Amino acid sequence: MMELLWMAVGVAATLIVAGLIRLYFRFEVRAYVAEDEEPEGKYRILRKVQTPTQRVALVEHEDQLLVYANGYVMFGTTEDEDMYGEALIHVPVSVAQKRERVLLIGAGGGITAREVLRYPDVKEITVIDIDPVMIEFGKTLEPLVKFNQGSLNHPKVRTVVEDGRSFLEKNEEKWDVIILDVPEPTMESLGLSRLYSWEFYSLLRERLNPGGVAGIAGSVLSNTPEYFWTIQATLKAAGFSVLPYHFDVLVEHDEDWGYCVAATRPISPADVNIQVPNRYLNRDRLKDMFHIRYGYWKYWEEDEIQTDRNRVLAYYQNEDM
Amino acid sequence: MMELLWMAVGVAATLIVAGLIRLYFRFEVRAYVAEDEEPEGKYRILRKVQTPTQRVALVEHEDQLLVYANGYVMFGTTEDEDMYGEALIHVPVSVAQKRERVLLIGAGGGITAREVLRYPDVKEITVIDIDPVMIEFGKTLEPLVKFNQGSLNHPKVRTVVEDGRSFLEKNEEKWDVIILDVPEPTMESLGLSRLYSWEFYSLLRERLNPGGVAGIAGSVLSNTPEYFWTIQATLKAAGFSVLPYHFDVLVEHDEDWGYCVAATRPISPADVNIQVPNRYLNRDRLKDMFHIRYGYWKYWEEDEIQTDRNRVLAYYQNEDM
Repeated sequence: MMELLWMAVGVAATLIVAGLIRLYFRFEVRAYVAEDEEPEGKYRILRKVQTPTQRVALVEHEDQLLVYANGYVMFGTTEDEDMYGEALIHVPVSVAQKRERVLLIGAGGGITAREVLRYPDVKEITVIDIDPVMIEFGKTLEPLVKFNQGSLNHPKVRTVVEDGRSFLEKNEEKWDVIILDVPEPTMESLGLSRLYSWEFYSLLRERLNPGGVAGIAGSVLSNTPEYFWTIQATLKAAGFSVLPYHFDVLVEHDEDWGYCVAATRPISPADVNIQVPNRYLNRDRLKDMFHIRYGYWKYWEEDEIQTDRNRVLAYYQNEDM
Repeated sequence: MMELLWMAVGVAATLIVAGLIRLYFRFEVRAYVAEDEEPEGKYRILRKVQTPTQRVALVEHEDQLLVYANGYVMFGTTEDEDMYGEALIHVPVSVAQKRERVLLIGAGGGITAREVLRYPDVKEITVIDIDPVMIEFGKTLEPLVKFNQGSLNHPKVRTVVEDGRSFLEKNEEKWDVIILDVPEPTMESLGLSRLYSWEFYSLLRERLNPGGVAGIAGSVLSNTPEYFWTIQATLKAAGFSVLPYHFDVLVEHDEDWGYCVAATRPISPADVNIQVPNRYLNRDRLKDMFHIRYGYWKYWEEDEIQTDRNRVLAYYQNEDM
């Protein structure tokens, strides 16, 4: 009888331990690497950091470093990142009439700064990130520094830890190019709408030199065309001339990434003339980038606008989840 | 004891009947309406016919008639069919320098003939189908005649029951426009390759008047871009100038349909000028139709050609299944 009791205690203890392990994974690991965002095959979590603004995980996967924020990949030392960065940077930067002063908002990893540094006429780059840990990683984390080619330590580059909006509100300096590379607002992160609103875009316009442009990352166009068109409509409402474009990785990832150039003068694809070395923006690709497929806007009629007070973009993002 | 025995007999009889019903569905119904091609929701099989060339089923679904061949939808009295027909017909027909004599191969349903009849300068249309039952349906089946607007009974239209290739081999008449709307060859229907081969396209070219064009349905471009490029390369090898185009129904069906115009002179999208009424080919759509997205041909380097003897197209179709 005593034996049976001990066996029961053993079974119960095992179950409790198993349950605790499961809870640990559910709440601890999953908060850093979401289940639907796990890399395929083997991977290793190198570090987990609760920064002042987010939960960051550094993950090693197939000799690449992936940087997760709140469970989702923010960027990595990957080919995807090169494609994304080239598309985000070279279209607006090549369209700008001048490019001496460039502001990068949400760029702690230093990868977009690496691309901007390819232009010899760029005199100073200011990199802003709200998360000091991201800037720190961009400057010192070995695989990342190798990938961004030490961009954040370059003499032309200055880094600032601050929210992009309050930086622009406080600093009346003007810029030739401003790049916005910030996460999409969702119902869980409504505050991010303040970096996508009519009020913010109007401020952006005031902070651009004549002939200046802004480049805006527009999420996955193929999942949420209505999100993309809202950004465009909002930019137009703020007085910008807008050139939408995309980078198709449907074969690789079943995704098509959206971007906008917002200019203070009318612009067209003919104004895009990329003179610096790059890997992905060949002539045929560029031609494709400025053709937005009929199906993306066929069903889209309303011109909704994101303001500081509504939830349009967050709503579209959550609808897609 | 006797009671138990009778019960067992009853159970056995029920199982046998159930098994027979299942067998019936598996071999009889499934041969006409494949499981993965069943309409959503309720439908009714109106008729099943083993024709000289195929198993045809007439299916009623949401007040529409679907015509199945060997288990798969061949066409129907649907909006999709209107889109497909407009795209297949109006691009080549509007590009042709003359359009007095038009040949439609594989057009028993009469829907493409309906579109060609919109051109007042068309003098005669010859509709060829290898299956006499299809032509009969196109001429007499009430919902189909309503949908094709009686095209096959129109005085300008002549119907011929014959294999398209042997018709062209035997008849030395010339045509202003030839449209090929035949099923894709597969490993199970290798004979269809003879309507896609270099030898056949060379014959096609001989049968066109100066300034004449052919229009070719190119299957689902988004599933098998390599199939589409093989058709193009084969047409070019046969001496044609080729204008590829597509009709995107990715939102509706997650498909993008491919087509080619094969012309005896160099042509470009600027030559497409559709003057007849239509529902789907507005200016923005047309602009989209001639832009083939980068991802479809980025990964495609070889220029394989379909001949009477190889299995290139069938191989690509089966790979996709």
